[in-house]
Amino acid sequence: MSSVYMNEMTWQEFNEKKCQVIILPVGSTEQHSFHLPLSTDSVIAEKISEIFAEKIGGAVAPTFTYGYKSKPMSGGGPLFPGTIDLNGETLIRLACDVLEELCRDGVTKIFVNNAHFENEAFLLEAIDLISQKYPNVKILESNWWDVLSQDIIDKVFSDVLFPGWALEHAAITETSLMMYLAPELVREDKIPTETGVTPIPYHKYPIVKGMVPESGALASAKGSSAEKGKIIVDAAVAEFVKIAAENY
Amino acid sequence: MSSVYMNEMTWQEFNEKKCQVIILPVGSTEQHSFHLPLSTDSVIAEKISEIFAEKIGGAVAPTFTYGYKSKPMSGGGPLFPGTIDLNGETLIRLACDVLEELCRDGVTKIFVNNAHFENEAFLLEAIDLISQKYPNVKILESNWWDVLSQDIIDKVFSDVLFPGWALEHAAITETSLMMYLAPELVREDKIPTETGVTPIPYHKYPIVKGMVPESGALASAKGSSAEKGKIIVDAAVAEFVKIAAENY
Amino acid sequence: MSSVYMNEMTWQEFNEKKCQVIILPVGSTEQHSFHLPLSTDSVIAEKISEIFAEKIGGAVAPTFTYGYKSKPMSGGGPLFPGTIDLNGETLIRLACDVLEELCRDGVTKIFVNNAHFENEAFLLEAIDLISQKYPNVKILESNWWDVLSQDIIDKVFSDVLFPGWALEHAAITETSLMMYLAPELVREDKIPTETGVTPIPYHKYPIVKGMVPESGALASAKGSSAEKGKIIVDAAVAEFVKIAAENY
Amino acid sequence: MSSVYMNEMTWQEFNEKKCQVIILPVGSTEQHSFHLPLSTDSVIAEKISEIFAEKIGGAVAPTFTYGYKSKPMSGGGPLFPGTIDLNGETLIRLACDVLEELCRDGVTKIFVNNAHFENEAFLLEAIDLISQKYPNVKILESNWWDVLSQDIIDKVFSDVLFPGWALEHAAITETSLMMYLAPELVREDKIPTETGVTPIPYHKYPIVKGMVPESGALASAKGSSAEKGKIIVDAAVAEFVKIAAENY
Amino acid sequence: MSSVYMNEMTWQEFNEKKCQVIILPVGSTEQHSFHLPLSTDSVIAEKISEIFAEKIGGAVAPTFTYGYKSKPMSGGGPLFPGTIDLNGETLIRLACDVLEELCRDGVTKIFVNNAHFENEAFLLEAIDLISQKYPNVKILESNWWDVLSQDIIDKVFSDVLFPGWALEHAAITETSLMMYLAPELVREDKIPTETGVTPIPYHKYPIVKGMVPESGALASAKGSSAEKGKIIVDAAVAEFVKIAAENY
Amino acid sequence: MSSVYMNEMTWQEFNEKKCQVIILPVGSTEQHSFHLPLSTDSVIAEKISEIFAEKIGGAVAPTFTYGYKSKPMSGGGPLFPGTIDLNGETLIRLACDVLEELCRDGVTKIFVNNAHFENEAFLLEAIDLISQKYPNVKILESNWWDVLSQDIIDKVFSDVLFPGWALEHAAITETSLMMYLAPELVREDKIPTETGVTPIPYHKYPIVKGMVPESGALASAKGSSAEKGKIIVDAAVAEFVKIAAENY
Repeated sequence: MSSVYMNEMTWQEFNEKKCQVIILPVGSTEQHSFHLPLSTDSVIAEKISEIFAEKIGGAVAPTFTYGYKSKPMSGGGPLFPGTIDLNGETLIRLACDVLEELCRDGVTKIFVNNAHFENEAFLLEAIDLISQKYPNVKILESNWWDVLSQDIIDKVFSDVLFPGWALEHAAITETSLMMYLAPELVREDKIPTETGVTPIPYHKYPIVKGMVPESGALASAKGSSAEKGKIIVDAAVAEFVKIAAENY
Repeated sequence: MSSVYMNEMTWQEFNEKKCQVIILPVGSTEQHSFHLPLSTDSVIAEKISEIFAEKIGGAVAPTFTYGYKSKPMSGGGPLFPGTIDLNGETLIRLACDVLEELCRDGVTKIFVNNAHFENEAFLLEAIDLISQKYPNVKILESNWWDVLSQDIIDKVFSDVLFPGWALEHAAITETSLMMYLAPELVREDKIPTETGVTPIPYHKYPIVKGMVPESGALASAKGSSAEKGKIIVDAAVAEFVKIAAENY
Repeated sequence: MSSVYMNEMTWQEFNEKKCQVIILPVGSTEQHSFHLPLSTDSVIAEKISEIFAEKIGGAVAPTFTYGYKSKPMSGGGPLFPGTIDLNGETLIRLACDVLEELCRDGVTKIFVNNAHFENEAFLLEAIDLISQKYPNVKILESNWWDVLSQDIIDKVFSDVLFPGWALEHAAITETSLMMYLAPELVREDKIPTETGVTPIPYHKYPIVKGMVPESGALASAKGSSAEKGKIIVDAAVAEFVKIAAENY
Repeated sequence: MSSVYMNEMTWQEFNEKKCQVIILPVGSTEQHSFHLPLSTDSVIAEKISEIFAEKIGGAVAPTFTYGYKSKPMSGGGPLFPGTIDLNGETLIRLACDVLEELCRDGVTKIFVNNAHFENEAFLLEAIDLISQKYPNVKILESNWWDVLSQDIIDKVFSDVLFPGWALEHAAITETSLMMYLAPELVREDKIPTETGVTPIPYHKYPIVKGMVPESGALASAKGSSAEKGKIIVDAAVAEFVKIAAENY
Repeated sequence: MSSVYMNEMTWQEFNEKKCQVIILPVGSTEQHSFHLPLSTDSVIAEKISEIFAEKIGGAVAPTFTYGYKSKPMSGGGPLFPGTIDLNGETLIRLACDVLEELCRDGVTKIFVNNAHFENEAFLLEAIDLISQKYPNVKILESNWWDVLSQDIIDKVFSDVLFPGWALEHAAITETSLMMYLAPELVREDKIPTETGVTPIPYHKYPIVKGMVPESGALASAKGSSAEKGKIIVDAAVAEFVKIAAENY
Repeated sequence: MSSVYMNEMTWQEFNEKKCQVIILPVGSTEQHSFHLPLSTDSVIAEKISEIFAEKIGGAVAPTFTYGYKSKPMSGGGPLFPGTIDLNGETLIRLACDVLEELCRDGVTKIFVNNAHFENEAFLLEAIDLISQKYPNVKILESNWWDVLSQDIIDKVFSDVLFPGWALEHAAITETSLMMYLAPELVREDKIPTETGVTPIPYHKYPIVKGMVPESGALASAKGSSAEKGKIIVDAAVAEFVKIAAENY
């Protein structure tokens, strides 16, 4: 067996991997419109981590399949059934414990690969707390969208308008990624046709029904394709590899 | 698609399932000797939940792949590389958040299926806290070993001695379960031959090397088989179905 | 004065004891049927600790008289008036603080003597956390029931059936212990005659009235005697002495 | 049996008491000079509660025998062996849990009787938090020193100078109280002769050796007597009874 | 007196304001290069809140002058003397308490005006938690940069290149704002001439010296002016007024 | 610029101050009768700190403008609009974070200047926790009232009766201090004429309306003057200077 998944390794196999980069995928359980599964972020985080690990000889820790709270303007919000949100303190503690245990096992290179935007501040808080205790461990955190160059974005949005990252929820990039990485989980016939939302430059509470379209999609997924997914994955992984080379 | 996994459902599909029993598998990332993967408890929890869900028309929430601290006398302890332990407060909060979110989504029947012994007290603490807030939600918690009758235990241990549940770590029952549920993850040729440990009726700190055999197995796995795994799974699921019928 | 109770010592007297084993009794405030007081677990923990301390020249720290939540199937549950339950996090923190203060005082041998089953996971969590900070302090945790040999159990249950440890709440062992250790607190005439409960291999929430017999006893206490109490105490203390000899 | 101690009651006996005032004594485990035991505050809290309960037909909940951190200028500080200090958050949570459980049992009149000065702010924080959840429960908090009239103080200090309450640690009032309430625990021959400390109007950290006299006493206990102890107890209990009459 | 500052009101004056919008400015204590004070974010948050309050008849709650951790790529990081960072959980709790107290006072319209980017996720977590308890209170959160239209950004950066918001730390926008709002606190002669940093699309730990320019500025402040500051303030306040009108 | 306020310094200016005493003023947002603003404690803490800093060449950290819960018998309680109370744990954490960050910046002399009585126990808990981690940092805590000699008190109360410190809320000392330190914030014409409250030697929950006079003042402010304020400030600062000289 030669899986990159820590989950599938025995402790002896992991022991041989622990001087390599350990990648921690972080996703969510969150509504992704009519056509994508609740695990969309988790699947994207895990599959990109797998490809990344293969390129650099790393290993992939068990994916966080629950993430921080979905927000209306970036994830559709908590009111859709199936969106299971963690509180901020919970995610901080969960990430702290897992990172600390990796440090105690002797791991010195960790890459946190986040695919759910709302997680980031809480993951970084955990990384900061652990980093103060284990200053010899190099911990990087990134995601597939921040590393994309304008060039790649232009390619993916050659035929449709880019609505901005905040609204790219269950839209072209995520749908294309899923069509490439896990096509069996995409219901293409269910892609909603309704138009997306207009972003607002503020946050509004209480969160109530009607803030986002009924489908839960924040922008149209029409025009998605496995090819576009591949473009994104290839570009993101190439960047991750470069970041790893420069930092570890 | 007709998966029982919530992860693979869209929010609309989950919405239709939410009046059914939602099963939450809880495992760990923990050493399981030379021959079983770190995910052993998680795989067992998830696969048995899948079979159980199919029988009762339920759905399976994303598995907790990280669990409470491995103890030397029931899991080999924290010193093996790859054993990733959560603190007690972290697991309590994680379980609270996920259970509360299910309750808020309108779920009223939850079954927590635990496959890592050390988790139990912390899961029950979380269930108790949530149950006080949502008294109309019925939450059950069980595991595959406590529901086995003496008859079944006798069948599984017809040819070898039963060392007691505490020592059944990476031993005959878990190995047989994995041979039946996920044979591709079992390294049969790596099953250690060394003899197991003698249980002690107390807990001892600090935890140091040498408290358990080098392999991490607490009792012998020799004599394991997929057939024995099937006997356990069938019996456990039958009991779970009965418990569900009596309580929801 | 030559009490083994830390409570009765001046700080100078304690100072001379601190290189010895310090025993921390942990009990509860919990219903114990019609015939035993709310302090049953605390009294048992404390009195056995006293005898143990006398044998080994140790000292007994102030008893924890409040413990973790009573569960229906092992303690009758929270619905009986007078059962005062601590949350899990509270007990963890309480035990952490007391253990840490003992460590700071220079104590290096601690024995946590628990007499309320539900406490154990939370006590061990606290011990684990403190043990990581004070690796030079040896901390053991045990209880009177886990150290009893089959021989002793057979003697105690020579004339009645042993219902299993979970149901031994306010039943023969605890009643006998109280008849031996604190006879003035036993209302023998109030021992209920009703039959006990059938254990179930799962946990069930919300906790409601009627899960356990009206008395709060989980098994019959008929047949209890001070003699049986003495057998248990003598055996448990002998084991504790042996454990101490082997580990400190 | 007709003890006022909840600890000695069965759940049925407590059930009959729960409409009465439930008194919660709060003490500490803290050095009290050469001549008084570590349990001084706990013993005083408990014994005065007992007398108070007898007068008003109330019941006494199990005493908190561990309290908040001893401070150099009011308790001698944490550096004496045997002083076991709880952190602030721990005491808040402990008091919250116990008070909440009493409220859930249907108790509506609670009197927290504190005998360790440093506890007060944390006890009041807990009472405030619980009081917001259970506004129908009347909770009072007091202590034996704040209720003494100038008259009583003058009587107790008729022959020696009153050094102020802060320095009355292991001095005349506490020693007299113990001589009256638990004479068997007082080592009269060990009362130190050294002079007390001069109070400073600020707090100073880190806490180091030498801030207080070697004995741990902050003022002289010479001139203590059981008679003075009786004067204090009688006056304090009379005030408590009056407070109870006016408020419940 | 007719200040909009709650701080300067008596409780009676505040009582008359509490049906209006209460604005909570949130800043930080963070290095802002050689030429701006540590209070830059707090001053900007407070002064803009003041102008906003005057426009809508609202009141300004006491400013949070300590904020969440400065990050190297958006604030220069924690290693500069004078940067005083709060942990995530601390800021969540602080914001929860203050918001809850406003809700309890009967306030129903709250506007959280944040001027330190790193605060946002933790403020929103607090708002979310409080909003679940007080669903009738409308809470908005925004900041001066997200509400600026492209038009305004173009005006401000008519003569220099816009480096992106992340790098706008102690650069043209903040310096211009301070020159307009608190000119006495700007050391114009100290504006550093060194070139800014190149942003990286990932986060890197441990945080070490040398990640940012010696001055602490992430982009050049050359070209700042009070006029530009006024343009930003006027535009931001106009947007805040519009948001308030649409939502309360 | 040569302000003593850290807030107005650049990081370089603070860097040069950090070997001096850093003073942390702690106040509250709390009702202070009809005539004083909600910020009374914060203003007093800050202004006295400023004068103190000028005398010793120290610097003043940003004032805590939110404090611990107002109590009826020392601050009028939480029921007045505009009283914004922090929970105990929140204040502990806030103070811990700020103190720790000062320690990390290399500060070794800290003086916490508290002007809201109710804060003290929680500030000392934070100081204790930080002091255990940074034993080389000298941290003092005091307040303006505890350092006043009987002489000074006699001068201030030469023409009226001193009601005791607990009731000196919005009364002569605080009003005089504000008339001296921030006269523009005092509404002298609004000083209430009603008589004060009678102190009670216990705490009473739930807190309800009517426990204190309608104005919120606990004793009369008639007879206050800027001159009396100056007497107090001069005396308190002189004592602080002496304490600093003796301890750092």
